[in-house]
Amino acid sequence: MNAVTLIARKRDGGRLTASELEALVRGYSSGEVPDYQMAAFLMACFLRGLDRAETAAFTHAMLASGAVLDLRALGKPRLDKHSTGGVGDKVSIVLAPILAALDVAIPMMSGRGLGHTGGTLDKLEAIPGFRTDLTLDAAIAQLERLGCVLIGQTAEIAPVDRRTYPLRSATATVEAIPLIASSIMSKKLAEGLTGLVLDVKRGSGAFLPELERGLELARTMIEIGNDHGCPTVALLTAMDRPLGRACGNALEVEESVLALRGEGPADLMEVTYALGAEMLLLACMAETRQAARAMMAEAVSSGRAADRFRAIVEAQGGNPGIVDDPATLPQALAAEVYTAARGGVVVRVEPRAVGHGVTALGGNRVRMEDPIDPSVGFVITARPGDAVRAGEPLATIHARDDAGLAKGRRALDQAIRIADELTEPPLPLVSHRVSIGGVEDLS
Amino acid sequence: MNAVTLIARKRDGGRLTASELEALVRGYSSGEVPDYQMAAFLMACFLRGLDRAETAAFTHAMLASGAVLDLRALGKPRLDKHSTGGVGDKVSIVLAPILAALDVAIPMMSGRGLGHTGGTLDKLEAIPGFRTDLTLDAAIAQLERLGCVLIGQTAEIAPVDRRTYPLRSATATVEAIPLIASSIMSKKLAEGLTGLVLDVKRGSGAFLPELERGLELARTMIEIGNDHGCPTVALLTAMDRPLGRACGNALEVEESVLALRGEGPADLMEVTYALGAEMLLLACMAETRQAARAMMAEAVSSGRAADRFRAIVEAQGGNPGIVDDPATLPQALAAEVYTAARGGVVVRVEPRAVGHGVTALGGNRVRMEDPIDPSVGFVITARPGDAVRAGEPLATIHARDDAGLAKGRRALDQAIRIADELTEPPLPLVSHRVSIGGVEDLS
Repeated sequence: MNAVTLIARKRDGGRLTASELEALVRGYSSGEVPDYQMAAFLMACFLRGLDRAETAAFTHAMLASGAVLDLRALGKPRLDKHSTGGVGDKVSIVLAPILAALDVAIPMMSGRGLGHTGGTLDKLEAIPGFRTDLTLDAAIAQLERLGCVLIGQTAEIAPVDRRTYPLRSATATVEAIPLIASSIMSKKLAEGLTGLVLDVKRGSGAFLPELERGLELARTMIEIGNDHGCPTVALLTAMDRPLGRACGNALEVEESVLALRGEGPADLMEVTYALGAEMLLLACMAETRQAARAMMAEAVSSGRAADRFRAIVEAQGGNPGIVDDPATLPQALAAEVYTAARGGVVVRVEPRAVGHGVTALGGNRVRMEDPIDPSVGFVITARPGDAVRAGEPLATIHARDDAGLAKGRRALDQAIRIADELTEPPLPLVSHRVSIGGVEDLS
Repeated sequence: MNAVTLIARKRDGGRLTASELEALVRGYSSGEVPDYQMAAFLMACFLRGLDRAETAAFTHAMLASGAVLDLRALGKPRLDKHSTGGVGDKVSIVLAPILAALDVAIPMMSGRGLGHTGGTLDKLEAIPGFRTDLTLDAAIAQLERLGCVLIGQTAEIAPVDRRTYPLRSATATVEAIPLIASSIMSKKLAEGLTGLVLDVKRGSGAFLPELERGLELARTMIEIGNDHGCPTVALLTAMDRPLGRACGNALEVEESVLALRGEGPADLMEVTYALGAEMLLLACMAETRQAARAMMAEAVSSGRAADRFRAIVEAQGGNPGIVDDPATLPQALAAEVYTAARGGVVVRVEPRAVGHGVTALGGNRVRMEDPIDPSVGFVITARPGDAVRAGEPLATIHARDDAGLAKGRRALDQAIRIADELTEPPLPLVSHRVSIGGVEDLS
């Protein structure tokens, strides 16, 4: 394999064969291909694209660079959900215990927060003692016992993707659909799933804000999943405002616990149930969406979902008491109510501004190595379309100190806009369903 | 400076300011910007281009990363010639002593051979004892005394270009005109010149074979030079066949000595005098090309040019005896005459095949770290258009052993084509002159 020849071909808009892509990834894995060659290749891919066959082959090569779980012995459907990332998106923490309680196996590998979007691992680690760095053996044992494990990408899984991901951040090669799709799918397909549901965010706070790009990403990932024998479905959901009310790690765990106890905000429950219904349909455990929703609602109202979460938290070293008393989660030292400066209608709650606000408070990273404070964040009760009076509470700011509160106020001043009337309606919460059969407009 | 932001802007087809390019180059120089970020940036530049202002700024930043010679104290015009590289191109070795004998200062920094093209440094080092790694101080002292020094790019000169050059080879980002132009010009402008003449090769053996690309490269370099206050002119010359007869390091030095003694092949002398005339015009030391050519011819016929070369060789530690007896140059152990397999007309002497043949004999590098054998190569007397009889000598192969001779025969079988008639005439030897005023067709 001559890496320069392969880079040059892609640079000139040519195609690479599956065995060439495999050789390149293998060379990168062994160290024969250095970071700078991979960086040039990724930039060429960014600007020239990868077609369907190349994307599938690149995904497969990254997948094959590491371990692939064989969970067939579990003897039940194995599903996972992946979100392209948003602000306030705690769906994984709510959905995994619900489905585990319904006897679906959920081998969930999640990521960390960076920039304006949070990460499920950071949220879970807000639970005192909670460990996400289980060995694969320990994870599989827990999966057998509780039907669910919530961990990070281990060193064994798609190690080339683990190296490529920070390289892409550092080389401005992140927002390329074939690269995003192959990175996500190489990790998810390593989980040995029988089905996968994708939550592709759209709107100003999404990684790819435009609908068309979101649909293209969804189609690309679905093709990879289905080509690989893993039935995959995607929903496009709204990220033109935060999901739910809480934004910040411990605050989001608290809201997740409320959701598991049947007290979650309506938008969070809607997205959770919509994604969960697709998973139960893929698992052939429900015949209709209505039936699937009823099963999930019953798992919540019966307390079985909360019980399962308690067991998972305990199994992973966390304090199970947080499920009964969320006040045992880390609490910010300073809190302040944020009120409306004028009366009118809330026309925007801009998720990027909220997410960057959490980062400014110390609750998320600018660089991968930054420490984070789990206690800080916002609980935003105002939603686009709400009529408000001047002085009415819109949110609570949770910060480390007065300086943090000031930063929080500035972030919310940026994020929340009140006007005389709502001119642009918010995006439909769940707008499209994408499957191998095509795109269905649900709005 | 945020390197990712700058890479992303270029990736998206945007422009970078001079201070942004300077910060990027400075960051690369200090280690803050790693190789992989520079690799991604170079690929983005390759695919998106750099405009005139960006190319000038990038060149200036690389130039400013190192030392710039101040040779004003020499009190005479300081000129250099740069060739984009070809097979059999020993013009520098002939031209530098001629001009030095005419009282032009020639601070010539040259490169090494790689792939199918040779390098002036390798040719000079075929002279027993000849050193090209002089310190800058020693080089300047020699320049004062002899008006000419023939050295390699020192560590002080454009160190960022020194690092970028192998990075570009390894990342398929070599053949981009703004990158080629800025690399060449950052080195040449560091020589503190009062004028520069470029030999831009065209034809199958050239780095950029197509005329239009050659013209674009010439224009780009001329703009950089003139923007920088260094009057620059380019000639486009033929590289659809080797220049002169000798290809191989010691053989080319021998041919250079013959040329300095007035016995050089006509095509080599024509290109040498054409480039030299431009230099003498830039130096205001001749009023017309005819006058310039007469001055150079006189420097040769009087023996002053050969005397100056002898002095330069001696000053740089080489055996000056090679000027009087070229047989003291390294001699290949095996030699063989290569003859015409059939009668007809020589229609092709393909320079790439000849150059790769020299490499196959051990006379040039595949990788930068490869050792080379100065003694091997070809002397090809057949020229396109020559009528030949079957069995007539076309060339001599100089090799290490019988296996080398066989490789040499295979290379010449590939390179030399004889047919019934010449269907495609060879390119004019000197076809275009490019200056800041425009392009002049000389053919």
